[in-house]
Parts: sequence; structure tokens; C-alpha cells
Amino acid sequence: MRAKLKTAVLGATGYSGLELARLLLRHPHLDKPVLLRRQVETDACASLADVFPSLAGNGEYRLEPLSWTALKRQHVELLFLATPHEVSRALVPEAVAHGMRVIDLSGAWRLKRTEHRAVYGFQDGDSLATELNARAVYGLPELNADRIANATLVANPGCYATSVILALAPLLQAGVVDREHGIVSDSKSGVSGAGKEATSRTHFVSVADNFSAYSVFGHRHVGEILEQLQLNQDELIFTPHLLPIPRGILSTVYVHLRQKLEAAQVESCFRDFYAGKHWVRVFATPRLPQIQFSLRTNYCDLGFCLAEDGRRLVLISCVDNLLKGAAGQAVQNMNLMYGWKEDKGLQ
Amino acid sequence: MRAKLKTAVLGATGYSGLELARLLLRHPHLDKPVLLRRQVETDACASLADVFPSLAGNGEYRLEPLSWTALKRQHVELLFLATPHEVSRALVPEAVAHGMRVIDLSGAWRLKRTEHRAVYGFQDGDSLATELNARAVYGLPELNADRIANATLVANPGCYATSVILALAPLLQAGVVDREHGIVSDSKSGVSGAGKEATSRTHFVSVADNFSAYSVFGHRHVGEILEQLQLNQDELIFTPHLLPIPRGILSTVYVHLRQKLEAAQVESCFRDFYAGKHWVRVFATPRLPQIQFSLRTNYCDLGFCLAEDGRRLVLISCVDNLLKGAAGQAVQNMNLMYGWKEDKGLQ
Amino acid sequence: MRAKLKTAVLGATGYSGLELARLLLRHPHLDKPVLLRRQVETDACASLADVFPSLAGNGEYRLEPLSWTALKRQHVELLFLATPHEVSRALVPEAVAHGMRVIDLSGAWRLKRTEHRAVYGFQDGDSLATELNARAVYGLPELNADRIANATLVANPGCYATSVILALAPLLQAGVVDREHGIVSDSKSGVSGAGKEATSRTHFVSVADNFSAYSVFGHRHVGEILEQLQLNQDELIFTPHLLPIPRGILSTVYVHLRQKLEAAQVESCFRDFYAGKHWVRVFATPRLPQIQFSLRTNYCDLGFCLAEDGRRLVLISCVDNLLKGAAGQAVQNMNLMYGWKEDKGLQ
Amino acid sequence: MRAKLKTAVLGATGYSGLELARLLLRHPHLDKPVLLRRQVETDACASLADVFPSLAGNGEYRLEPLSWTALKRQHVELLFLATPHEVSRALVPEAVAHGMRVIDLSGAWRLKRTEHRAVYGFQDGDSLATELNARAVYGLPELNADRIANATLVANPGCYATSVILALAPLLQAGVVDREHGIVSDSKSGVSGAGKEATSRTHFVSVADNFSAYSVFGHRHVGEILEQLQLNQDELIFTPHLLPIPRGILSTVYVHLRQKLEAAQVESCFRDFYAGKHWVRVFATPRLPQIQFSLRTNYCDLGFCLAEDGRRLVLISCVDNLLKGAAGQAVQNMNLMYGWKEDKGLQ
Repeated sequence: MRAKLKTAVLGATGYSGLELARLLLRHPHLDKPVLLRRQVETDACASLADVFPSLAGNGEYRLEPLSWTALKRQHVELLFLATPHEVSRALVPEAVAHGMRVIDLSGAWRLKRTEHRAVYGFQDGDSLATELNARAVYGLPELNADRIANATLVANPGCYATSVILALAPLLQAGVVDREHGIVSDSKSGVSGAGKEATSRTHFVSVADNFSAYSVFGHRHVGEILEQLQLNQDELIFTPHLLPIPRGILSTVYVHLRQKLEAAQVESCFRDFYAGKHWVRVFATPRLPQIQFSLRTNYCDLGFCLAEDGRRLVLISCVDNLLKGAAGQAVQNMNLMYGWKEDKGLQ
Repeated sequence: MRAKLKTAVLGATGYSGLELARLLLRHPHLDKPVLLRRQVETDACASLADVFPSLAGNGEYRLEPLSWTALKRQHVELLFLATPHEVSRALVPEAVAHGMRVIDLSGAWRLKRTEHRAVYGFQDGDSLATELNARAVYGLPELNADRIANATLVANPGCYATSVILALAPLLQAGVVDREHGIVSDSKSGVSGAGKEATSRTHFVSVADNFSAYSVFGHRHVGEILEQLQLNQDELIFTPHLLPIPRGILSTVYVHLRQKLEAAQVESCFRDFYAGKHWVRVFATPRLPQIQFSLRTNYCDLGFCLAEDGRRLVLISCVDNLLKGAAGQAVQNMNLMYGWKEDKGLQ
Repeated sequence: MRAKLKTAVLGATGYSGLELARLLLRHPHLDKPVLLRRQVETDACASLADVFPSLAGNGEYRLEPLSWTALKRQHVELLFLATPHEVSRALVPEAVAHGMRVIDLSGAWRLKRTEHRAVYGFQDGDSLATELNARAVYGLPELNADRIANATLVANPGCYATSVILALAPLLQAGVVDREHGIVSDSKSGVSGAGKEATSRTHFVSVADNFSAYSVFGHRHVGEILEQLQLNQDELIFTPHLLPIPRGILSTVYVHLRQKLEAAQVESCFRDFYAGKHWVRVFATPRLPQIQFSLRTNYCDLGFCLAEDGRRLVLISCVDNLLKGAAGQAVQNMNLMYGWKEDKGLQ
Repeated sequence: MRAKLKTAVLGATGYSGLELARLLLRHPHLDKPVLLRRQVETDACASLADVFPSLAGNGEYRLEPLSWTALKRQHVELLFLATPHEVSRALVPEAVAHGMRVIDLSGAWRLKRTEHRAVYGFQDGDSLATELNARAVYGLPELNADRIANATLVANPGCYATSVILALAPLLQAGVVDREHGIVSDSKSGVSGAGKEATSRTHFVSVADNFSAYSVFGHRHVGEILEQLQLNQDELIFTPHLLPIPRGILSTVYVHLRQKLEAAQVESCFRDFYAGKHWVRVFATPRLPQIQFSLRTNYCDLGFCLAEDGRRLVLISCVDNLLKGAAGQAVQNMNLMYGWKEDKGLQ
């Protein structure tokens, strides 16, 4: 029998990192993962159960300092980074140099075009980083399964981007979208998407009984959506909004079709594209996804509504931002990288 | 000194009706309003404070059965209907025949085009209703102030419609919108907009931690938006969504401009259109309205974000669905009908 | 290798029933459970995924009509009832007569004293029911493990009762509580505890931004708490409250001690009592349980705070009302009845 | 006609301070209040509408730096402090020395007993502060109206304390409470009670779908409750909890009576005590207050439930923590200080 895979996670004290740690801890093909403490985290934070008491009573969750020597001694083959993008940008080259494969949940390695990468403050220059960036695979399994399987570095997609790309990819590939007309994605996310930092914006009194748009024409996820869907900048408007709920994303996507279609044709387009893809559920009209339906699952739920003219199409796409939008997708990517079934450890 | 106006309200036990009763009770130019009980409401419901204990201790809120004779004896000049549209359709002709002016909060009298009216189940036929319908004035004060002032019957606008029409009217009047390109209004409302009836859809567990679209391409408010803005059916996509909050609406409206504009020009367009209009607040970029800002006020808050190309424009419009979207706007209409300042009784 | 156990569930379309179906579907020692439709449920409700779209895509969840013949043909050995108490009272004798063991989630069979049973409208009289009632075992595994293991009929405890009994049992057994002084349990529950029926009380607008007490001195769970803890009626005040959250219970329990104790002694009392009990977590002072910590787990979390005088004690007890307070506990009981580890299928 | 009173507010950028500014701005007997900026607040914060955009469009809300000279030039007679207790402790002696009357919303001047004051870090020593502290009047109008009317310095009560004291005062004064048995107040508050600072505790994700107890046996408001009700430390257990709502307090108070009473007697006790008191509403059994009923009002709502034994009594007390629990009560105190009706400016 094959030995179990040894993994490590850096950043398990954040929202996505915790979900990831939970998934890895119960994944049947994995050895107990090494939980690493970020440098900014104090000794007080000795165990993950100190940060998340809901974990108490289920064993040890000791957080260790990051040491490449120690990781090698423990035979860690795969490193997950649930860290800010600056930290990921700095650490990935070191991890790769030490012979590890990496799945990075930050935005650091998702973008190929220099002008997009600028939103993360990255300049081309360092040749190793440039070379690694070129080899990094955008970890959306429904689009890039083959390349993910062989990747050294997988850049796990953004949560908003996952919901938008999966909604649009089938129609764009089928060539039925009037791209020049422009696509609108009106997207809404729960608060965990804004991270764990306490700010006036995440204060309960600011969020509860409220709803607001932000980063209009300026959100960081736009670049990855454009690159993956091969769209030009002026072909997409993406507007994120903050929902008064802890987690979940719903994107309402507006598309004009190049020719009149029947609803059955639209549905076929989705069903054909996602045939055999476990983690996408296509809803038959007139049912539409809701955030609750995909919450605490790794599914991306897709539904649509076609105008009577057969030309104007409204798509609804839902994901749990911490699972299919982050940690669940990372596990899905790992499953591909090691030849396991896509739903392993994710049910 | 002029005698105070005598008013009556039917339907004060609903969400909008309660807000209306509250506003009328403290309006300085009004006599104590007559609160009328709907026929379906039992005797058990003797006082509004039985239904809304928050009112207790502030005097009498006795609910009386509707009787035209009694209303005339009490010299009621103005009747507010916060009733289902079928009830409003039946009662308004009677009220007008008894010499009263009416402000109706339902959708019964808002629409001029027969095909739009069909969504409320109304057929042309009854000549009195047809004639009254022709005379009914759409009660959006920022657009129709003069006609409201002289109206016998004011059809108070829908909550979603208020948010969308006020966002679009200035740009459409200025002729800068590329109408053929199509306008998208992605609108989100709190649960009180769905009314007080207890259904599986309004159950706390269905709404909390959730978000969903509904009535895509089929919401009743579309007709009034099209009529007031003189748009064709295929020039607007309107998608309503249910927010996990008790009240408030935010509409994100997407528009293509016919020519490149500067942000300052867009802002001027709004400021010029709403100059002197007390109940619309135009936000200077980059600030955007949020639902909390207009909550429990009669304001419609408008803000915008213009793409770098100067052609693609995102508008944000917020109203409290029970105030500017219903009861507050009804009081604003009454103020116009009786020559009072627009903010009277609404601060 | 032993064949897997065949089970059936009636009432899977309710909140507790759904959780139960989910747990049974993934329990490693079970055959796929038979999902039964209640008589009041129409044909429209053909599959559990129609009622809960979050289940879609994970296989078949067909709901079948209840037929004892069919259940025998399918070799069902254990029947779960997640039904109203009247339904449970009627069906259990039939199921037992057909040779099945039963775990009933309603209150129908929890009470031994006739005067307590009256709150469920049950009179003594039917001798079979009386005899069955005497044999029914109160399914709180931390107290009654041995009797549960051999039971034909397990009466699964109420959610509030679980939180209160587990908080008090160790101290009462140790004899340190001044019972005559009286115990207060101020308990708070999320809305799913009130069931799935849409009422004005469960309407989102009634619950959100609100909090209220109900059934003071008159809640149905009082009887089971008194019986299990062998308290007299006047030794306990139990006050339930409705929290604006979907699920979770926190009970704050106030106790006077007969003698001065140290915090360490109180903690020992809890730790000793629950030694080896997987599903109770005792918190060391000064940490206290919160609803989030036990949410979506089968844990009962217990913590406490002792006054400086060493006599007055505040206990905090948290459970997820749908898991440890209902479906999770039912699975825990099944595990005991069939000799499996207590955490099987519940991680 | 008498000139209007000139007031000033320091701390209007906090939650209570904003409510206070709103109330003062529309109070009919006041000149426009001077809004003062705290020293820690930057110039960026030029207007209150910058901090709370909901205020925009209703005139000027310029924030000025604190200057005693400027306040005297503007003839400010009454100063409100909505500041941290250290700031209030430092500023009140200066304000009094400049001839102003002061209403302080912090805990700085509420306590007479030295050992209670220690929780705010205050030592006796400074003779002026000691003398001022002795003269400070606890600003609970239903208990201390006469002394408030003549006070130079009014210490506005804590929000929790208001709810608990008003629930208990009638029964304690009537001498029917078995004080030796001990009183329990299980109190629950919305998040605005924790202040505007962004912390991990007030992060939306920490509060939503959660509920927790805190500061058990150690909350600062205990001292004022004990002093106002003349209770000994061991006669009261006060347990605060954090509700997932923005505002509102409900206290469930448990009392043993010295003798058997009828419900009508308990109700009379409350009605007699609060006869003529506008801002307390006594609920007739079996109706109980809920947080929604008193939200956005200055009412304290009181209800009760008596056990069949006539000895055990559960009281329910609700206030809006920002109004009757803070800003509304401050205005009520001002009304008393200047001989105005108690509800002036508070409807």
C-alpha cells in the first residue's frame, strides 16, 4: 500500500486556511498535515484550537514555525499557502527550490499579463519569479485539469473569479456571446471574503442591516477573469457588493447572445461543457441557485433565465467563497495533482 | 388659522401601512387620521397597538371598519390605501365618487398601457375604471410634481421602481444614454418588500445567511419603470434579489453612454436634474450610497462610477422601501397635493 | 463481513429530519436509508432534493410512502421518526409490533410521569402505549448508555433539555447543588428550533433585529429536565428565548452550591463525570463556550464561572439544536444500540 | 419668548454620541448644538456627515475642536460628554469650573462607593474630583427626578443598568423581594453596546450566527445597579451576553418574593411606581416585551410572569441601549434640568 501524502499549510489561522486545515485533516489519502505558524503570529497562538475553539477536542492542532529543514525532515511534498500575496510571492520560489509542489491560495501567481499583475504590486525583474510565474497553472479544475495534474505551482483562483468564470466559460467557448456588447457581472459576497482583519468596514454594526457596492471598476479579481476567459478589458464590467452574511457568493451575470437561442440550447451548452465535472451543478429552468444551496459544499451552482427574445440571458452562479472559492478548490486541485478522484475528501 | 386636514388610512396593519400611520400621526398639518380595518381583519384586531406593540403608550390607535358614511361624517378629504391591488382597484372608484382624493400605495392604478396592467389581472372594460385610470397620476414627486398637485388619484410608485426611475431619469432626459445597447438594473431588496404574509420564502431560516434572485424577466414593477422612462421592453433588464435584511433597497444600474463623458459631467447631469429636490441626495464620486445611509429616511441616494473609457457607467441608487419606496413618498405626495413643503412631516 | 444495517426515516423534510437523513446517508455502517414521505406530504414532493436543493447532485433521495410491508421487504430494522408527537405516538406501537426498533425525535415517549405527559395531550388508557411508554428509554447517551444499548424504543431528548441536563447532571450527582434554593436556566435558541412552519413568529422581519422570551413557566421541555434530573417542579425555572440566528442553543444556568468550592473542584466534577464521553467538551475557566463553537458539530460544550464567594455558580452550555439537540444525538443513540463507537458517522 | 438653550456635545462620532446629536438637532427648545471633535480625531473628520453619511443633506454638521473660550463665547450652558470615562473624568471639573452644567454619558461619575469606582481605575485623592463625585446625580429620571432637576453634573446611567434597575426598583421599594435569596439578571445586548471600535470581537463573522456570555461576575455596570438599588454584592448575579443584532437590550430578571402574590398585585406594584412616568411602559400579562417593541424609542418596556406558586417571578425589561440606555435618557435628563416636559424632543 502506498504511503500517505505529507502536506503542510501556512496560514491556517485565517478563514480560508482554517477550512483548508479541516479538509486536509480528514482527507483519506493524507498524513496528518503540518500546520505552520506565520511569522507575524505570536507564540500565544500555539494551537489552531486556541484561535478556533470549535476545533477543540478533536486532537492536536499544534502550530509550528516555518522551517524548510523541518519540512524536508517530515517529508512534506506539497505546501499550501493561505497567506497574503506578498508572503506567497516571497515563499513560493524557496519552496520550489526545496523540491516541493505548491498550491497558493493568494493572488500572487494567478496572472500572466504584467499589467494585471501590477494590482498586486509585482514588477517583472526577478528572473526566477518571472520563470515560475510563466509555469504557474491557474487552478480552476473544470478548465485546466490536465495542466494542473502536472503542475509544480498551482495558483488557486479567487472566489469571485471562480463564480464568474464558471458561469461564462461554456457560452464563450461555444461562441454564442456577443462579446462586443459587453458582459456585466453583478457579484455579491459574504463578509468572510473580506478577510479576518477587524476594520470599521467589517464591524458588525457596519455590515448588519446594510448592503453596498465597492471597488467598482477596480477589483483585483478582474484580471484573472479576463485572462482565463480571454476577454478584453472593455468587454466586462465586474461590480462586487458586500452581503450581510458570513459566507457565500452569488454572481448575476448579464450576457447578450449573438443569435437567438432556445432555453434548451443554453442548458445543453452548460450540460455539455460540464459533463463529468463533479463540482458543477447545472440547474434546469426555472429553478435558480441560491447562496444557501451551495453553502458548506464545494459545488458551483449554475442557473439561467433567458428573455423571450432569446437574446438576453441572465446567469446565476453561486459558490461558497471559502470552499469552491478557496479551500475546497485547493483540495480539488491536490486531488488532480495526485491522480485521486475529484471529490475525494470533499463530501 | 386653517383647519387641519382629515385623512384616513386603510391597511395600517401591513408594513407600509404602519409606517404611513406613524407618519400621519405626527404630521403637523393633519388631524388625527382615521385608521380603518380591512374586511379580512377580525375584531380581535381592535387597535394598531395590538398588532405593533411598539406603538403602545402613545395614545389611541383604534381601528374602525370602513364606512363611507362615517368617513364623510368625519370630513375625511384624503384616503390612503395600503391594500392589495385588487382591493384598491375596487375601492378607489367608490372613494372618488364620495368626493375624496386618494393616494393608493398598491400597483392598481400605476400603469397606462393595457399590456402592462395585465400583470395585475386587470382587463379594460369598466368605463369608470378606465376613465379613472387615465386620470391617475404616477406619484413620483421628482418627476410629476405639477400633476400630482392637482390629482384626484395618485398612484404611489413601487419601491423598486422608485429606485430605478430616479437613477435613470436624469441621464435619459439628457439624451446621453445609448438606449439600444440596453440598460441593466440589478436590484436588491430587504424582506419587508415581500409583505407581511408568512410563507416558506419569508421564514427566517430561508432568508438568513442566504441571497437569491427571483422573478427574473417577470417582475410587476417593470411596467411602471418602462412607462415612466419611456423605454421599450427590450431596453431594460430588471433583476430583483432578496437580501437578508428587514428593509432597504439598493439598485445597481448599468448604462452605456452614447458619447464619452467626464465624471464631472455625469455629476452635473444629476445635480441639475435634482436641483431643489429635497428628497434626492447626489453623492460626489468616489463615495457611493449604501443601504444604511438612507434607511429610515425618505431620501433616494444616488451615486455613480464611470469607467476610464468614459462610456460605461454604473449607478447606485438606494431607498428605504417602506419610506421613499412607499409611505414616505405617499406623504410627500400629500404635501404636494395640499401645497405644503415637501419635507413636512418627514424629517 | 457483517451486512450493513438497513434504516428508514420518516419526516426527512423537516429541519431535524434533513440533518438526520444527511448523517445516515454517509454513515459507514449503514445501507442507504429508506426515506419516507409523511401522509400530509403530496406527490409533488417526490425527492428530498426538491425540498432541499443543496442535496442535488449527490444521488437519489426519493421519498416513498410509508408501508410496513415494504419496510419489512427491505429488511428495515431501525426506524427513525422525525415527526410531530401525535404522529409518533400513533406509529411507534405499529413499528414495534412489526419487530422494528425505533428512535423517536419527538416528545411523545420521553416522559414517565402522567402529569408531565399531559402537555403533549396524552392520557393513560391504551395499555400497549402505557407498557411501551414504561419501556421507552430516554436517549441521552451520557446518562443512559447501558439502557439505550438494549432499548427497543429510544425517546430522543429535546434540544433545550439536552443543554440543561448535561450542564446540571454532574453537579447534582455530586450532591453539591443547593436544590432548595432553586435553579434557573435562562436558555436561548435559534429559529430552526421552532420548526419549519411559516408563521408570523418565524417571519424574517419578526425575528431579525429582535430577541424575546416565550413560554415562561410553560415550556414542554421542562418535564423531561425534571424527570432526568429528579428535581421537583419548584426547584427549576426554565425560560426559553428566541435568538435571531438559524440554529444553536446557549443555556445560562444559575446554581447555588451547598458548600464553598474552588473552581478547580467544579472543573473536576465535570471532567470526572464526562471522562470518556466523546461528545461533551468541558472548557477550562476562564474560557466559556459560544454558540459558534459547537455549531454544526455533535458536541455539547460546557463551561462555568464561579463567584468569589465560591457558592454562586454560572454554567454555560451550548449545543447545535439540530445535531446534539436532535439528529446527531439520534445517530449517537443508534451507535450505542448497535455497539458502534459513539463518534461513528458524526465527525 | 425665552431664548433657546445652547448646548455642546463632545464625542458625537460614537454610536451614542450620534444619536444624541440627532436628538439635540431637532429638539424644539434648543439652539443648534455645538459639535465638538475629540482630540484623537483628525482634521479629516471635519463634519459628522463624513462619519455618518446618513446625515448628509440635512444641513451642516461641522465638528469643532474643544475650546473653553469658544464655548463661553457661544454661551454654551450645558455640555454633553459621550466620551471614554477617562476623558470624562478629566474634562468635567474643567467644564464645571467654567460654569457649565454637564451630562456625562460615561461611567466616570456614576459611582459613590470607592470600591466600585475602582473598576474605572479611579482612586480617591484629588479633592475637587471627590467633591464633584459626591455632588454628581445618577441620571435615572424615574428614580431621581428632583435631584436631577437641580444637578450641576448628571451621570447618565449605563444601558444594562437602566434595564435592570427599572425592572427591580418597584418590587424592592415595596419590600416584597426576598433579597437574601439572591436576584439573577440574565441580560442580552446588541453589538453597538460594545462601542464602535473594530475588534475581533465585533467582527461581523464573529458575531453573526453566534451568541455568547461575557464578563460574568465582572461587568462594570454591576456597581451602579447595586448602589441604586441598595443591594449587597452577593444579592445580585448579573450576566451580560452579546446578541447578533446592532442594538437593543433585553434583561430577564429572576426574583423570589417574600410572600405569595397574585399577578394583579405585581402589576399594581409596577403601575403604581411608574404612574405618571412617560417613558416606562408596563405590559399586562401574559404579554411580554420584545426588543423590537422599544427599538428606536426612549421607552423602557417592563413585563413579568409569575409562577403558579406566587413566589417565583420572571421580569422582562427592554430598552434601546442607544436611547433609553444612553442618548435618549440624556435628553430626558436635560428636560428635567430645564423644567421641560419629559417627552420633549423624544417622540
